[in-house]
Amino acid sequence: MNYKISIIGNGNVASHLIRALVSFNEDFTFVGCYCRHDVQVNYPVVHSIEELPPSDIYIVAVSDDSIAEVTKQLSYSIASSALVLHTSGTKSIDTIDNRILHRGVLYPLQTFSSEVDLNMNEVPFFVECQDKNDIAITEQLALKLGKSVTYANSERRRKIHIAAVFACNFTNHLFSISQEILRNDELEFTILEPLIKESVRKALLSDDISKLQTGPAIRHDFSTIKSHTELLLNYDRNLAKIYEDITNSIIER
Amino acid sequence: MNYKISIIGNGNVASHLIRALVSFNEDFTFVGCYCRHDVQVNYPVVHSIEELPPSDIYIVAVSDDSIAEVTKQLSYSIASSALVLHTSGTKSIDTIDNRILHRGVLYPLQTFSSEVDLNMNEVPFFVECQDKNDIAITEQLALKLGKSVTYANSERRRKIHIAAVFACNFTNHLFSISQEILRNDELEFTILEPLIKESVRKALLSDDISKLQTGPAIRHDFSTIKSHTELLLNYDRNLAKIYEDITNSIIER
Repeated sequence: MNYKISIIGNGNVASHLIRALVSFNEDFTFVGCYCRHDVQVNYPVVHSIEELPPSDIYIVAVSDDSIAEVTKQLSYSIASSALVLHTSGTKSIDTIDNRILHRGVLYPLQTFSSEVDLNMNEVPFFVECQDKNDIAITEQLALKLGKSVTYANSERRRKIHIAAVFACNFTNHLFSISQEILRNDELEFTILEPLIKESVRKALLSDDISKLQTGPAIRHDFSTIKSHTELLLNYDRNLAKIYEDITNSIIER
Repeated sequence: MNYKISIIGNGNVASHLIRALVSFNEDFTFVGCYCRHDVQVNYPVVHSIEELPPSDIYIVAVSDDSIAEVTKQLSYSIASSALVLHTSGTKSIDTIDNRILHRGVLYPLQTFSSEVDLNMNEVPFFVECQDKNDIAITEQLALKLGKSVTYANSERRRKIHIAAVFACNFTNHLFSISQEILRNDELEFTILEPLIKESVRKALLSDDISKLQTGPAIRHDFSTIKSHTELLLNYDRNLAKIYEDITNSIIER
């Protein structure tokens, strides 16, 4: 069986999915993309949903808040046998309009930037569908696109998303604070590169990352903590607060 | 000139320094190590400070709280021309006993574990001395040991240390929280590996890491933040608190 796939959206997730799909020469065939605006791309694009070629699978890779509206529109023009997948980490499967019978989620766990090339086949996918046959197709597609596929209902996907927020979004925030402190002293963030790479490497190998914890908080080195807090208070009250919050969180664990 | 070097201590920093020093065949020669207890190592060790062979440089790689006491003992037995360096990121140069005339700091910015092999020549060093000639020698030694050498007085070193706490110690704590949330759902932390590696890679290339910030907080996506907080509150009140603190810090920046 060869499944025809259409993509709805022209953001980062959509364009990375299309880049992968066009390279497939069996099982799945990319047939078209819908986006509202004119875009300069080298694949077929339509500007109204009704113009999409008939497809077996529609992947809705739009912002979280547009999923309901876009799938409502889709419901009027697609075959009742078609499978509609959204790609959001946070939104429930039920965000897809309930006039659509075959619904599912195809969530790639990665940060996508349009400028950055990315190996889709290193990305872990999380999928959810209500129908057994839909699961099989979606898992087949995810495995062909990515590195691994795991079934995750909306609740589980929400937890994965929270874990990613801690490990990536929050970490980025700490990196940016660190960069600001260093820059204030005309030092480059890259002086921390060996330290950061080594910490990340160790964490990814560890069964219990809490045991790798180093630094003043875990040593209960209150004189260093006090000296750090004083220096930060002189510099930026918000930084002193976040230093204190995370320090307390380490001490209390 | 060939400088004789003794090491005081047998922790991770001491043993990694010795491993690098014994491979030198000019400029600096490792002559001995003092440590209190018996250790199984393949280099000369003495168990009282007075037994150390006469040296030009003594590197005091002991815990922060022992620097004052150890250097006081050292002051009784070493030549007045000898240079004494501590390796702490937080302690002032003045922690070294003031009977010692030639004092300095040789701070390797890296996390050291005894089990893990480490390329000392990828480590950035930060040095401080009061005497010009001492600076020259310490910089020469640091460059031979590591990747780069930067002069940093105690105040600047304290800021580098705070920046490292944010970028590594605190980050490790967030990784451990993330691992706990995933494990609770029988998921492995390594599912986040591509995401983490990509975030770190981008941060290390960025002139302004705050611009890379993604996630619900920076999008002011309060419905997702509320849903995450509710889930965390049911699970662990401390986690909900740290989620809220960092989210607010991102929103306020």
